[in-house]
Amino acid sequence: MTTALMAPPLGPLLDDIVRSHTPQRESGSVPATIPHLAAVPFNRFGIAVATTSGELFSSGDAHVPFSIQSISKVFTLAMALRGDGPGTLWSRVLREPSGTSFNSLVQLEVEHGIPRNPFINAGALVVTDHLMNETPDAATRLLRFLTEEAGSAGPFIDEDAAASELSSSSRNLALAHFLKDFGNLARPAESVVENYVRQCSIMMTCVELAKAGLFLARDGQGTHGPVVSRSEAKRIGSIMLTCGMYDAAGEFAYRVGLPGKSGVGGGILVIVPGECAICVWSPRLDAKGNSLAGTAALADLSDRTGWSVF
Amino acid sequence: MTTALMAPPLGPLLDDIVRSHTPQRESGSVPATIPHLAAVPFNRFGIAVATTSGELFSSGDAHVPFSIQSISKVFTLAMALRGDGPGTLWSRVLREPSGTSFNSLVQLEVEHGIPRNPFINAGALVVTDHLMNETPDAATRLLRFLTEEAGSAGPFIDEDAAASELSSSSRNLALAHFLKDFGNLARPAESVVENYVRQCSIMMTCVELAKAGLFLARDGQGTHGPVVSRSEAKRIGSIMLTCGMYDAAGEFAYRVGLPGKSGVGGGILVIVPGECAICVWSPRLDAKGNSLAGTAALADLSDRTGWSVF
Amino acid sequence: MTTALMAPPLGPLLDDIVRSHTPQRESGSVPATIPHLAAVPFNRFGIAVATTSGELFSSGDAHVPFSIQSISKVFTLAMALRGDGPGTLWSRVLREPSGTSFNSLVQLEVEHGIPRNPFINAGALVVTDHLMNETPDAATRLLRFLTEEAGSAGPFIDEDAAASELSSSSRNLALAHFLKDFGNLARPAESVVENYVRQCSIMMTCVELAKAGLFLARDGQGTHGPVVSRSEAKRIGSIMLTCGMYDAAGEFAYRVGLPGKSGVGGGILVIVPGECAICVWSPRLDAKGNSLAGTAALADLSDRTGWSVF
Amino acid sequence: MTTALMAPPLGPLLDDIVRSHTPQRESGSVPATIPHLAAVPFNRFGIAVATTSGELFSSGDAHVPFSIQSISKVFTLAMALRGDGPGTLWSRVLREPSGTSFNSLVQLEVEHGIPRNPFINAGALVVTDHLMNETPDAATRLLRFLTEEAGSAGPFIDEDAAASELSSSSRNLALAHFLKDFGNLARPAESVVENYVRQCSIMMTCVELAKAGLFLARDGQGTHGPVVSRSEAKRIGSIMLTCGMYDAAGEFAYRVGLPGKSGVGGGILVIVPGECAICVWSPRLDAKGNSLAGTAALADLSDRTGWSVF
Repeated sequence: MTTALMAPPLGPLLDDIVRSHTPQRESGSVPATIPHLAAVPFNRFGIAVATTSGELFSSGDAHVPFSIQSISKVFTLAMALRGDGPGTLWSRVLREPSGTSFNSLVQLEVEHGIPRNPFINAGALVVTDHLMNETPDAATRLLRFLTEEAGSAGPFIDEDAAASELSSSSRNLALAHFLKDFGNLARPAESVVENYVRQCSIMMTCVELAKAGLFLARDGQGTHGPVVSRSEAKRIGSIMLTCGMYDAAGEFAYRVGLPGKSGVGGGILVIVPGECAICVWSPRLDAKGNSLAGTAALADLSDRTGWSVF
Repeated sequence: MTTALMAPPLGPLLDDIVRSHTPQRESGSVPATIPHLAAVPFNRFGIAVATTSGELFSSGDAHVPFSIQSISKVFTLAMALRGDGPGTLWSRVLREPSGTSFNSLVQLEVEHGIPRNPFINAGALVVTDHLMNETPDAATRLLRFLTEEAGSAGPFIDEDAAASELSSSSRNLALAHFLKDFGNLARPAESVVENYVRQCSIMMTCVELAKAGLFLARDGQGTHGPVVSRSEAKRIGSIMLTCGMYDAAGEFAYRVGLPGKSGVGGGILVIVPGECAICVWSPRLDAKGNSLAGTAALADLSDRTGWSVF
Repeated sequence: MTTALMAPPLGPLLDDIVRSHTPQRESGSVPATIPHLAAVPFNRFGIAVATTSGELFSSGDAHVPFSIQSISKVFTLAMALRGDGPGTLWSRVLREPSGTSFNSLVQLEVEHGIPRNPFINAGALVVTDHLMNETPDAATRLLRFLTEEAGSAGPFIDEDAAASELSSSSRNLALAHFLKDFGNLARPAESVVENYVRQCSIMMTCVELAKAGLFLARDGQGTHGPVVSRSEAKRIGSIMLTCGMYDAAGEFAYRVGLPGKSGVGGGILVIVPGECAICVWSPRLDAKGNSLAGTAALADLSDRTGWSVF
Repeated sequence: MTTALMAPPLGPLLDDIVRSHTPQRESGSVPATIPHLAAVPFNRFGIAVATTSGELFSSGDAHVPFSIQSISKVFTLAMALRGDGPGTLWSRVLREPSGTSFNSLVQLEVEHGIPRNPFINAGALVVTDHLMNETPDAATRLLRFLTEEAGSAGPFIDEDAAASELSSSSRNLALAHFLKDFGNLARPAESVVENYVRQCSIMMTCVELAKAGLFLARDGQGTHGPVVSRSEAKRIGSIMLTCGMYDAAGEFAYRVGLPGKSGVGGGILVIVPGECAICVWSPRLDAKGNSLAGTAALADLSDRTGWSVF
């Protein structure tokens, strides 16, 4: 529930957030196994807010493209739900918090191949497989969707980065073969992982991501009509709140109080239902894999605007 | 985010909810190990709504006392936080969803005696131990608080039921000794469990519980002043949303979209931030331990009123 | 410790074992996912004993080739140890019982990619990878070794069966990619699994397997000289006793009291140190994956001969 | 299988073992939570061998009493089996290696309250409960048995030590209440733990323990007649080999090749079937909880005598 506070105007507030939270020294970590993510200067920090009334605010490195990584899972889920006429997706993946680290095989084994939710890697592979059933090149379809919603030709798949990530995707290949073993993957494990990695390698800016995510703050309404139904939009929000920040979902709900989805590229997409979509980016991560400066900035922003669903 | 719909007036709506959801036949289960809970007629169903504007609506068996069981955890947490001057409680218990059943020892062992959140049994035992530090008879203190907030002399500890439950509390005793072994329990295991069981054995009606929980919808403001700060109230809400429904928190957030806490006595307390507190009760439970008719009624109510934080 | 009993002569005793233990009706199960194993008639039963004094006894279907499956792991381990000059194998795999089912990924995750022992699938993949370092076509090398020790041109790789098994090797591929992710696999996951599956698809008879395993009863001495050192032979025996029967190693040690290794093809190889090697075969399996009639026959044989290491 | 080597006479050999293995400096650890075990000088080392032919050899601190701790589990199991006319013990506890550390609650939860084997703490509590059914004061009965077999009035229960251990028995109390919750404990959790701790607090010397364990090397024959049947004696040996050394059973079988049982007091009892019982003692432990010098000495002794079941 949003409580209107006497917040300062949003433009100056974002500038202030940028001043306060842009990293001054190297702290946190970068994914050692993904060279192109590790190479980004530590002091990058950008933020953008797209409101349901059509305004756009941004500050800092809000126009620098970065790798969206797991933020893609929100959009893939939306597209899979849109095309899920027969409603079979939810028999293949649950909607519960995982309670363990985001790529654990343990839970998958205990629960016989049904991933806990669509935002852990195993669940995202199932969603990708589901979407590929309809559109084999799911990554390109996702790119087209993001381009349209962002109203920008900017987003692109960094194919070199994707190829590089694919060559170190042993964990995801293990997950995919494991899902296959449980009968919860229709397509070949290798091609699902390849498509998934290409989705993660989409490059976008904070401004583009905030605009692309706006349909979730607008009851499912995208730029060119409904993306998902009002009730599906609310439900995606509930999954973001309970499962969107890896093993720190509870902590993020506690500190920020808004549905969010992070990626190891350092981005976080946050929804203020009825109000706006927010994207923040700073590349260095905390121990749970979420942007260090980004999380702090969002907590600060939530405190100063009163934005919170609670 | 609450979206105002053209909802029917609340009184007739609750009557309709009672007509639709009162169980017509015996389905679901009751806790076999707790005789006094198993004895309640299956067709009991009550609902009450206390609004922040001071109105009270109720229907069905809203004036029949039932065993609040784990709903007590919300109030014990609030009282422990109120008295937690040095702020040490959060070093003894986390705020993350558990991802496993509510009384699992596995997670406790893997995480070296720090429970995942205050609403699984292990976490509630730590909160009770914390509160007993300040007030040895924590259960009686809890009762006094509930009595005051409910504005009713109705609430009481069913000491016979408590004694009976205590005699079959092996699991909770195992948890308490395990916490002790990890150095995360100050008082004797037996006395913490006894106090905890007495808290769970408090008898209240839907009307009383809705009124007692209202401070959480009112930014922490109780009948006689602040119970917790505004920010603590919001945070308790976030823990309810992510951890309040045992292993069905994600599903409840998806279907109902509101912070809630259930008990094996068949009650569920739900908060609509800024609007109202709702209590529903029906004794028979689904496979996850949440009231079957109660959960369905809340999903229906959420759909028909538009109440949802998303 | 072998206690010499007044046992009947071995030839008639084996005939009697065949009479008592040949299955009269279909009980137990066959691996549903491996068509060629499921097709073997249920009433097959063979037994062979090769003694250190050079005698050979056999009865029943002792000359019918069957798929040796996991029994191959004993021989691959011996060959990997023989070639392990630098002694690095034991830094890549432990020697402890697994305590969980034979293809569990859970333990592998908890122990960071170091399999518990060489006889669970994960461990066997590491041993195969280790051996491939020296001899890329490890399966063919294994076949040559078995042919020499068996003194028979009989053993062969059933390449059709191997191809069929490979097409349903999702679990093993998951394990291999998982090991790769932990840095405990040098070669490509796909080629290690392929080689492993071909080892498992070697076809041999009870007589051939008993002769091939005899070096383990003879302090490591094979037909043409030492296969492994005396101390390595004893140590392979200890691993067979503690880890050779999937999750029933303790039960087998309790009932039979001898080092053994079973395969899902229904074979079991057993060593009586200083005395003989025994191979028994009957295709239908108990709930733990060990030959039902084979295990019963070995318990009977152990009782009647006094053969036991205890 | 014992292979007779040209071993030096046993007396001088034990003296040499004492010279080689008596710790010269403080390494390894002692149980921090058990004060009386932590207080023993680090350079204590004793060894004794009692042969089936009636001879006795010893060297070093072989006449110094120490706390037998978990070695008691071997004897309690023997007594429980002797009195287990209806044969119900094996429905309450399995005989499989645990694959996890000796006091894990995880496995107990996964396997619904049936401990993996009688030598992990949970299993020993069940065995004690079983024995108490017949003889409520199981610890005193155990003491009497040990006194008779050792042919010495030396063994005694260190009641002060027992009281001290009992006051820090949270983990064992957790296990006992957990077993109770699963219906696998007949007597009150507290009294089973108390009795168990008193068994562990029995003080004996290496010489006394070697003599008391001799019945296991003699097909079950004790000083005054059969303790257990020949087949039970062999089976206890198999459980010692597969489960006797906590999570290092595989490693011990690999290095020493004999059934053994260790205790955190630093003692290890080893059986050479048909030949002798060996007891070694040195108080400091390795990371798995087994005597550091004791394990090394047994490996050395096994190498030099050829004693091994493999």
